[in-house]
Amino acid sequence: MTNELGFIDLMRTIATDPAARGLNDDAAVITIGGETLIITHDMMVESVHWLQYCEPADVAWKLVASNLSDLAAKGARPIGVMLGYMLSDDDWDRSFADGLRAALAHYDVLLLGGDTVKSLGRMDARSIGMTAMGIATCDPVPSRSGAQAGDALYVTGTLGDAKAGYDLVCKGQGGAVFLRDAFTRPAALIVQGGLLAPVVNAMMDVSDGLLLDASRMAAASGLAVSIDISLIPLSAEYISIYGDNQESRMTASSWGDDYQLLFAAADGTELLVPVTKVGVFTNGNGLTLMDQNGALDLPTTLGFVHR
Amino acid sequence: MTNELGFIDLMRTIATDPAARGLNDDAAVITIGGETLIITHDMMVESVHWLQYCEPADVAWKLVASNLSDLAAKGARPIGVMLGYMLSDDDWDRSFADGLRAALAHYDVLLLGGDTVKSLGRMDARSIGMTAMGIATCDPVPSRSGAQAGDALYVTGTLGDAKAGYDLVCKGQGGAVFLRDAFTRPAALIVQGGLLAPVVNAMMDVSDGLLLDASRMAAASGLAVSIDISLIPLSAEYISIYGDNQESRMTASSWGDDYQLLFAAADGTELLVPVTKVGVFTNGNGLTLMDQNGALDLPTTLGFVHR
Repeated sequence: MTNELGFIDLMRTIATDPAARGLNDDAAVITIGGETLIITHDMMVESVHWLQYCEPADVAWKLVASNLSDLAAKGARPIGVMLGYMLSDDDWDRSFADGLRAALAHYDVLLLGGDTVKSLGRMDARSIGMTAMGIATCDPVPSRSGAQAGDALYVTGTLGDAKAGYDLVCKGQGGAVFLRDAFTRPAALIVQGGLLAPVVNAMMDVSDGLLLDASRMAAASGLAVSIDISLIPLSAEYISIYGDNQESRMTASSWGDDYQLLFAAADGTELLVPVTKVGVFTNGNGLTLMDQNGALDLPTTLGFVHR
Repeated sequence: MTNELGFIDLMRTIATDPAARGLNDDAAVITIGGETLIITHDMMVESVHWLQYCEPADVAWKLVASNLSDLAAKGARPIGVMLGYMLSDDDWDRSFADGLRAALAHYDVLLLGGDTVKSLGRMDARSIGMTAMGIATCDPVPSRSGAQAGDALYVTGTLGDAKAGYDLVCKGQGGAVFLRDAFTRPAALIVQGGLLAPVVNAMMDVSDGLLLDASRMAAASGLAVSIDISLIPLSAEYISIYGDNQESRMTASSWGDDYQLLFAAADGTELLVPVTKVGVFTNGNGLTLMDQNGALDLPTTLGFVHR
């Protein structure tokens, strides 16, 4: 199989228009009739992006939320989605439709159209794609690449909850609705994104892990980023299972699926959303980690690379 | 597996906004900043929409052309596409990228972004999705449902060439470049669509077969349609293989993938594109076939239903 990054490099030689943002961003940005349209596409594959024991309604919810999360990171107001759906069995399809209906209603987003195809009966390699479109609410539209030296790195909410929910779902454990929902029914932070977009220098969502995504933002901005692990925001629910220590903080920082917003802004910028400052951008390149006691070694894996 | 039409019915209960056009059309139509955006999404599945011995570059070309063909049927000027790509092996991916680059350059369309996912190594169930966006060039934007009683049914170009090309490719036969290209590198009739859109009452592309697609246009318009098989336009190349008789005309009329434009317009409308009149819409419902000798029985299959 081709290396994913190699294929994306190939695509970059085709996607040369500024609207594609060098394929370094999570969405395309094009101007149409005086409005700025934001478009993103996510694909989910069975056994890669969802597990066979996942509720189909949750798969639909997550597909919607992960797409809308990319719009949120642009401060965009979602308009509608297109669905590329590979049919399963009747129960699965009905449950998926229920989750789709619920998620679109929750975010007040239209289903505009799409395509439905057969799966050849192979139930373990199905894939579902979604394109989401929104309208920019501020100019310029935040990208990954705008961080400035001296900017603080902020993140909304808490991290690691999706990881905890994943473990609970895998173990078939009940209870802990907050954590399970963080994994199965993540939130797209549309309102927060809209409030933050006008005042940030760079923004993206944490889909592949804070450390990896912050590294990407730093690289796109031509800067270094330093993250203080002791500042990573953890929920009481997460701490109750994993404790509050360096290992649990590393785990929460290198697991994806949290869909929190990660952004760079001048230190002291007035922010209308509760956020946590977790690091700082400086001249140079690369990621450094620290806690109260000083520098830390980087973990082997910063996040999910191939997803 | 859920019946595809059943699933689409479920989706219709979600896609209630007029922009979705009741999922009866091949594209969504939304107004943004004074412009009308046309959006379509097509998915292709290995072993369903392309065969393993197809050239990957041709698969890419066809994915682009089939999407742009839906825009052509709306008279839209294409802007860009989003690609949802499941990785294959290095050779396949490179060839696909070559075809994608060629097709997008041919139609002067931007690659705006997308998503790349792993295939789990199962090479026979991969799927690739594409969303294409364009700007409407006339108002109203043609739909399937606008045909009027008394309108003539017209089609561009010739039919059956993709079928002939498919047979040649399957048999591994060389030569007959025109027919092979009709199957492997179909044309999206963007220019023709733009010229026809302002004067037609209804339009769509022939992706699933003339008889089936004309039936759909009639049903969407609340009318009956009568087609004269002896008027079906055939190429000299097609006739050289299949002959010119009732059977060959039925085959050409019930095979898809031709991507010609099919439209309803008042008889005698001045058309700036070479077209053939093949039928007429009348009050009532259903499809009737005839030739010079009178009414004909309908074939068992009008076209490709589940694709």
